[in-house]
Amino acid sequence: MAPRQNELPDQSLYTSVRQYVSGYDHPDYNCIFVHAGAGYHSTENEQKHLRACRNACQAAMATLKAGGTSTDAVEIAIRVLEDDPVTNCGYGSNLNFDGVVEADASIMDSFGRTGAVGATPQIQNPISLARFVLERSSQPMALQRVPPNFVVGPGAVDYAREQHFPVSTNESLVAHSARIQFSKWQKEIEYQEIMERRGKALDRPRAADFSLLGASTRPIQEAGSALPPTTKELPGTPQLLEQNVDLVTDTVGAISIDRYGNMAAGSSSGGIGMKQPGRVGPAALIGVGTFVKDRGERQAAAVVSGTGEHMLHTLISAQAVNRIYDSNDELDAMKKVINEDFMGSQGYGKANIWGEPAIGIMSVKAENVSSGKRLISFVFGHNTDSFALASMTSSDTAPKTIMSRVSREPKLAIGGSSRLVQMQIKTHIEENPKKDKTSKRLGAHDKKCHVPPPTKAENKTTLASGLEGLHLDNRDGESS
Amino acid sequence: MAPRQNELPDQSLYTSVRQYVSGYDHPDYNCIFVHAGAGYHSTENEQKHLRACRNACQAAMATLKAGGTSTDAVEIAIRVLEDDPVTNCGYGSNLNFDGVVEADASIMDSFGRTGAVGATPQIQNPISLARFVLERSSQPMALQRVPPNFVVGPGAVDYAREQHFPVSTNESLVAHSARIQFSKWQKEIEYQEIMERRGKALDRPRAADFSLLGASTRPIQEAGSALPPTTKELPGTPQLLEQNVDLVTDTVGAISIDRYGNMAAGSSSGGIGMKQPGRVGPAALIGVGTFVKDRGERQAAAVVSGTGEHMLHTLISAQAVNRIYDSNDELDAMKKVINEDFMGSQGYGKANIWGEPAIGIMSVKAENVSSGKRLISFVFGHNTDSFALASMTSSDTAPKTIMSRVSREPKLAIGGSSRLVQMQIKTHIEENPKKDKTSKRLGAHDKKCHVPPPTKAENKTTLASGLEGLHLDNRDGESS
Repeated sequence: MAPRQNELPDQSLYTSVRQYVSGYDHPDYNCIFVHAGAGYHSTENEQKHLRACRNACQAAMATLKAGGTSTDAVEIAIRVLEDDPVTNCGYGSNLNFDGVVEADASIMDSFGRTGAVGATPQIQNPISLARFVLERSSQPMALQRVPPNFVVGPGAVDYAREQHFPVSTNESLVAHSARIQFSKWQKEIEYQEIMERRGKALDRPRAADFSLLGASTRPIQEAGSALPPTTKELPGTPQLLEQNVDLVTDTVGAISIDRYGNMAAGSSSGGIGMKQPGRVGPAALIGVGTFVKDRGERQAAAVVSGTGEHMLHTLISAQAVNRIYDSNDELDAMKKVINEDFMGSQGYGKANIWGEPAIGIMSVKAENVSSGKRLISFVFGHNTDSFALASMTSSDTAPKTIMSRVSREPKLAIGGSSRLVQMQIKTHIEENPKKDKTSKRLGAHDKKCHVPPPTKAENKTTLASGLEGLHLDNRDGESS
Repeated sequence: MAPRQNELPDQSLYTSVRQYVSGYDHPDYNCIFVHAGAGYHSTENEQKHLRACRNACQAAMATLKAGGTSTDAVEIAIRVLEDDPVTNCGYGSNLNFDGVVEADASIMDSFGRTGAVGATPQIQNPISLARFVLERSSQPMALQRVPPNFVVGPGAVDYAREQHFPVSTNESLVAHSARIQFSKWQKEIEYQEIMERRGKALDRPRAADFSLLGASTRPIQEAGSALPPTTKELPGTPQLLEQNVDLVTDTVGAISIDRYGNMAAGSSSGGIGMKQPGRVGPAALIGVGTFVKDRGERQAAAVVSGTGEHMLHTLISAQAVNRIYDSNDELDAMKKVINEDFMGSQGYGKANIWGEPAIGIMSVKAENVSSGKRLISFVFGHNTDSFALASMTSSDTAPKTIMSRVSREPKLAIGGSSRLVQMQIKTHIEENPKKDKTSKRLGAHDKKCHVPPPTKAENKTTLASGLEGLHLDNRDGESS
């Protein structure tokens, strides 16, 4: 029998059915926000990270301007980041203990639709497979079958293959830099084994001897996953600068709002280096790495990067969305999410998870503030050395980027901006609708301000140009 | 080199380190609650399901009385349910599309510690592997490695093997009944394929032709997962009774409070029948299938059973915990969780997930109500035909069970009970502490009561005997 056209055309890219048009169409409303992970970005590589963010914004904005949805934009933005070897997702991800890229990714939209993949090998663009799962989740299937919205491991690869979704090889996902880093970690493990055999106790409980494990080739203690040194154990910043190494913890993310008023968010990650094969991290988990809440009048989304094992029990992206959704002071809400919900839940007697908790959160909120006007607020926070962010709105000619840095203890940077958009409900105007240039920029502050006075000055900065002013460093305790 | 004793002894069963003793020790405080899934339990098999629940309670209570923690009790209770072929978890689980048992399980305790496994083959007791992951998550590892708290697929089996956790074979997990059901579903699929080939359009978009798929042996539409018919599509109850079939949707669960005042909750499931290999369901997901919140003065937990794909975006167990934690009317809170948070988020234009949403939620809350007295409230709700539940407290000589049933539209059953316990903080008394027998039983109501008047009558029923009175059926609109 001659093959016929597959009856389920690939809706993955640009071609998504826009079944949820909300009654308005505002080319001016399009916006995209991306981050390339929280951690430590070396100053030498800073431009590489920011360029990746810029490229992601541009691709997403082109999609939005062509009428694409926020879900399209998030997928495209993250694809660009995945394809760039500088980020820890897709091509160039950290390798797991077996030297394989195993990807986590998730995407969620205004309608509560979700798609996610976890610990998935052989997929060039995990975010696109997650998007594919999302699209399929609303398609009826024969025999009362509910299509899955979370697939993992080799089963996810089988799923992709059967659905004619492109499947790659493990080798094609390994970047040169990831291979080098992997070899380095392997050497460290070998060194540690030698020390173990010599009976030198390390400062941590020592790993079981290799020879105990019979057929297994892995030491017991290594069955977990390796984390690049966290900021606390790092040498001071000057040495790091000389070393020219990036220590980006985890995960890229994107949030978009489209001209139809809908929001989407997504995350993608190669996970922590030398991780246990099969380990699933926050980027795959709705409510932990990615979350969207939309009640029409108001909507909020958050994407999170950091040490996943410390985030799971706090459902941190959902918590960030809930706090920011309910708050009139989004910067303060973000601070509470990091200090109370995240850091407050760590440590002995609480979530007694070993390791240093690190987090970076990017969040966007949109709400009707007065007749026909909608306020879009962008807010981020991190307790890592740096957090790479970028944004672009339809009125920007180029993306705006920022490498938010903080170097002194206690580490916490909170920043944000906002923008008022004039909405003309249920009209379709070809020209740009009359814009209200009145936007406010939220103040930026750090942990030292215990009762932060957010500078809600009404001025003329747009969201994007506001972003430029958000470079934080708590050396001077205020935004630069 | 001669093998030495493994340096990380198996802490999995009964032997957990009780590092979090809270300063009091109340043998009277021990309690265990279990459910064996929401769905449709045939009257013929009803006793089998309830016997499984009873056995689970007895094993857990023995553990608690021997000084075990709530985490031990939850693990033991679920192990008993897993080992019973009548439940859809462990031995006797539904088979996936490849005829293999792939398990989801998760466990969480008062301290925010979590452990979870997803789509994991070859594990006899998935809850014990989840518990193992939980224990390991707080143990330091060499080389800054953070131990995983969620492992999936074959990677989870590797993890188990390396940690000397028992690994079984796929064959040993397949019960006779599961094999028969699998064959039946296979025949249905074959029938559908024949109909497809004959060009007869089904009422749903038809599956792509097998022959289109080249090397793949699965039809495109079957790459998702099969769901046993939901209540809506079922023949009327009389026919069902004749058929003597169980249609239990998903997932068993347990919640326990121990004499140290700590709470734990867990879930385990074989997932939906004929599921996509690699599909992860709610039982593996913290916040979706299992959640615990503990702030000392007050604590709450919820475990959920139902159609997983409809639960994910609502983070329904966390939502149930939050509502019930904050509410003074737990029955009303449970009703809102099912009607607003769960059902209210379904359908076109919202979470447009295909299939019939079905849910059963079991929740427990404990809080200090007056000096030295702690109120333990048990509340459950379901919109399925039936929900099998049981409870046991340290003052009970035998577990109390209930098969909550509801048969008329609109289907909703809400029930619960509560019990006051006299606490004597920071004392260790060998005899039973003076008990306050004053307990109240919460009223039971169904969807027809739009403003439910919970009958908070102070009477002498205990939590367990309260349970007996909770058999609901909205044919008469009140508890029987």
